[in-house]
Amino acid sequence: MEPQFGRLTILGLGLIGGSLAKALKAKGAVREVVGWGHREASLQAGVQLGVIDRYELDLADAVRDANIIVIATPTLIAEIMLEQLANLVPAHAIVTDVASVKGNLLRAAERIHGEAPANLVLAHPIAGSEQSGVAAAKADLFVQHRVIVTPTERTSIPMLETIEAMWHCAGADVSRMSVDDHDSVLAATSHLPHVLAFALVDALAGDPAHREIFQYAAGGFRDFTRIASSDPKMWHDIALANRVALVALLDQFGTHLEDLRAAIDRSDSDYLLQSFTRAKEARDHFSELLRTRALPLGDE
Amino acid sequence: MEPQFGRLTILGLGLIGGSLAKALKAKGAVREVVGWGHREASLQAGVQLGVIDRYELDLADAVRDANIIVIATPTLIAEIMLEQLANLVPAHAIVTDVASVKGNLLRAAERIHGEAPANLVLAHPIAGSEQSGVAAAKADLFVQHRVIVTPTERTSIPMLETIEAMWHCAGADVSRMSVDDHDSVLAATSHLPHVLAFALVDALAGDPAHREIFQYAAGGFRDFTRIASSDPKMWHDIALANRVALVALLDQFGTHLEDLRAAIDRSDSDYLLQSFTRAKEARDHFSELLRTRALPLGDE
Repeated sequence: MEPQFGRLTILGLGLIGGSLAKALKAKGAVREVVGWGHREASLQAGVQLGVIDRYELDLADAVRDANIIVIATPTLIAEIMLEQLANLVPAHAIVTDVASVKGNLLRAAERIHGEAPANLVLAHPIAGSEQSGVAAAKADLFVQHRVIVTPTERTSIPMLETIEAMWHCAGADVSRMSVDDHDSVLAATSHLPHVLAFALVDALAGDPAHREIFQYAAGGFRDFTRIASSDPKMWHDIALANRVALVALLDQFGTHLEDLRAAIDRSDSDYLLQSFTRAKEARDHFSELLRTRALPLGDE
Repeated sequence: MEPQFGRLTILGLGLIGGSLAKALKAKGAVREVVGWGHREASLQAGVQLGVIDRYELDLADAVRDANIIVIATPTLIAEIMLEQLANLVPAHAIVTDVASVKGNLLRAAERIHGEAPANLVLAHPIAGSEQSGVAAAKADLFVQHRVIVTPTERTSIPMLETIEAMWHCAGADVSRMSVDDHDSVLAATSHLPHVLAFALVDALAGDPAHREIFQYAAGGFRDFTRIASSDPKMWHDIALANRVALVALLDQFGTHLEDLRAAIDRSDSDYLLQSFTRAKEARDHFSELLRTRALPLGDE
């Protein structure tokens, strides 16, 4: 394959950016990959591991002559990167990202540029691992995983198609969605479950004196709370970045839970049986979807 | 080993009762196992599979000359069994159970007998499987799993020790706890997580029109919601049987969640980071506990 994506610059070289670089290099789809970040040790490791070809510590040097600039920093830092890139990136270069929330970045771009730039193609690969850092990067991290691209009406169609082609090249399943739909769907399937898991574990055992209850926990508790072992800083960023959608969903869930609590309190057998049965039926439908897709499910 | 537990009668021959019978028969620790239930086909299967030696359809016949009577019916039916057994069981026979909630059974026994009977030894094996029914019974279901026995001040010590010995013989780790402590601990580690998982899935996708969101779900959602595929009738019974502890805990969790929602709404970075970090630290402690115990964790 010819190096169709030209020069790629990765801002923030960790698991996601590193895995994308590895995947594209393995396919011979990039001419050069340049890394940039604040931790020179990670960048040096990236070169040694062959994940990137070279690195720069100055942002202007890093993005010079890049065809595609991938913001792969933590979620809230990505907003700052958009600002810092504003006067450095020519209109013919594509700026894209990998963050879990899209609305905060779109709003930041509109604030900075007055309107959404045509060369900004926001994207979210739904993939991850319990490990982090460039040393954990692997070329097949995105294979058969979903990537959602969230163009606006002003997004350049050729640039959108280039980013879609880039993710296809990395092995991903690519979907298009509006920024608002993305943030609502991810709030439901990912952000709310994480917040509930953190909340439950903190409510039960935030006080170390209460931790002896864990010795009586079974498999249900282990699986239900696994995501409470996720990176607190990352989920702090996501909760703040997707604040509006998350709060709306917490309110919807809170009302539902309050109704369920009242039903338990008045021993409303029919209500409980109907609610639990609907939930089981929906969850079984999800299991069936997993079986028929036969997709590996990574962490988000 | 001599058949130290004599004649065992299992009321309600399913996964749990069947597995206990198999474990004790494999050790030669029972002289005879008698099954009783409403579904003769299950009882016939139990005989064919060698799980029980014989069965009776009449309760009086089933418990006649039994040394230990194990109530292994669904949770709410167990209360009815205590009533039906009241005039059938002599004081020298032990009545025990395997239900997930203990307070409702203790209150039922006190209502029936005026006070907790000395020969009633309530117990809860924290073990299970995604399968159910006597055909799924296996002799090692309880090996290295926890069984909590919940004696009262009136419980006969020799009878308590017999039931503890019976569970040790089945390979379990046996702990003693008060009825109230058991119901609080299990509400926290098992009943609340199940109710939250059912509530989340019902709130998000109880309406089939909303189920397309599932295709964007990742591994976190899968694990967090797995227990929403549990048996709705079983969890309906548990929620009603442990109503008081569960409602108290739902209130405590609701307050915690409301505080967290408010912190997200006001973008309170410190609050979120502290809460998520406490939760991660507690959950990592639980992971460490699992590693050092090296115990298999079944479903509850």
